[in-house]
Amino acid sequence: MTKDLEHKTRYRMCVAYDGAAYSGWQTQPNHRTIQGELERVLLELTSQKERIHCSGRTDAGVHAREQVVHFDLAAPIVPKKLQLGFNALLEPDIRVLSIRKAAADFHARFAAKGKEYRYFIYNADILLPFLRNYRAHVRMKLDVEAMNKAAKLLVGNNDFAAFSANPHREVDGTVRHLRSLQVRRRGAEVCIVAKGDGFLYKMVRSLAGFLIRVGAGDLPPASATDILHSKLRTARVPTAHPQGLFLWKVTY
Amino acid sequence: MTKDLEHKTRYRMCVAYDGAAYSGWQTQPNHRTIQGELERVLLELTSQKERIHCSGRTDAGVHAREQVVHFDLAAPIVPKKLQLGFNALLEPDIRVLSIRKAAADFHARFAAKGKEYRYFIYNADILLPFLRNYRAHVRMKLDVEAMNKAAKLLVGNNDFAAFSANPHREVDGTVRHLRSLQVRRRGAEVCIVAKGDGFLYKMVRSLAGFLIRVGAGDLPPASATDILHSKLRTARVPTAHPQGLFLWKVTY
Repeated sequence: MTKDLEHKTRYRMCVAYDGAAYSGWQTQPNHRTIQGELERVLLELTSQKERIHCSGRTDAGVHAREQVVHFDLAAPIVPKKLQLGFNALLEPDIRVLSIRKAAADFHARFAAKGKEYRYFIYNADILLPFLRNYRAHVRMKLDVEAMNKAAKLLVGNNDFAAFSANPHREVDGTVRHLRSLQVRRRGAEVCIVAKGDGFLYKMVRSLAGFLIRVGAGDLPPASATDILHSKLRTARVPTAHPQGLFLWKVTY
Repeated sequence: MTKDLEHKTRYRMCVAYDGAAYSGWQTQPNHRTIQGELERVLLELTSQKERIHCSGRTDAGVHAREQVVHFDLAAPIVPKKLQLGFNALLEPDIRVLSIRKAAADFHARFAAKGKEYRYFIYNADILLPFLRNYRAHVRMKLDVEAMNKAAKLLVGNNDFAAFSANPHREVDGTVRHLRSLQVRRRGAEVCIVAKGDGFLYKMVRSLAGFLIRVGAGDLPPASATDILHSKLRTARVPTAHPQGLFLWKVTY
């Protein structure tokens, strides 16, 4: 493998996508996926069948404002040319924002130092048609102050098993460092901003689902600590809808 | 007809829609249209087959943030109930924002005193996937100052035949009062705001198409006056793409 890499050029690419029409990131037979589309176009552009690795998979319906990926080419191509080719052949709901050559050992997932996700809620009686694919719709007026109280209790280096969909399948365990978790309101728009070194499967949507319940008055903010310490995923933590979630930024 | 009206209740309704999936406002056989959807749902809700009249038709792909419509019902229904019914049965890309009973002589089109349209341009190399149905994409950096110079020359009570797609088919002639026409930039977002007492067929998209040419340096701002006075629609005025256009507000 090391030998193979010596002959290949690694590319680092930043991609934005609207997840509404896709069955998530990962290639699956008979499903349109982001990875599937990118690999298909890469093959079409370069005649080289290469795997594209991302910083972290996104689920069906989830968006990315800035996903970072890497791949290798045996026969290198000027990055700008590659970018133009991608954007010419991809559907307009996936865009290559930037691309550059990277060190042979750069890895979109393992080299990532931190990630930011944003979960967007439209908190009003009627969801505007233009926002329907990009917001979770919550009619009940959310108490953002209560949500922030609960959010504060979750920040830190914690075992987030209770906020994961499949805790036993996490190969690296269920402890993660949640650096910050904040809720902001601007009119009908409520945004949950989560920053951390990494996130478990469906963790951000679980945090959002829990915070929405707190905001709606179903659970007290202090329940955050109980749930966290229980390390058990129960019905108290619902998974919020995918369309409100954006992978916002990956840092290296 | 007057006799008929005495027995009916008139409703005034405010509707928002994403025009991307529709062949415009007007009912057409074998096409999904906004009017067709609203009339279908009204029939389903009330068992009454009634025509729905709007303040002004919108073309395929054009959006409305606030379209105003009216219709009559022989057997009246509580407005709030009607609104909930519409929003339950319509697709989420059409929303009834409000509904109330109106005077029997209220007419969404003839009673309108003014209209505001906004035309949105994303002025950057790459169009973000989330905006693809709601912005015209212009890569060439637009000179907003030049656009505003040209826009100023078009304001007033003028014959806009040169900015209409079908001047000979306008039953009320081609003179309209354009009250204001302004171009604003905020980062990559450029917005053209047009206010007037009424607009000719495809007039806003023609004004936008012309202003984009001026902004790109293809035409000098002063050409606005020549084109206006020519009263002739020529290739100098292209029709800008529909997805950037929003019917923003109707005043009565």
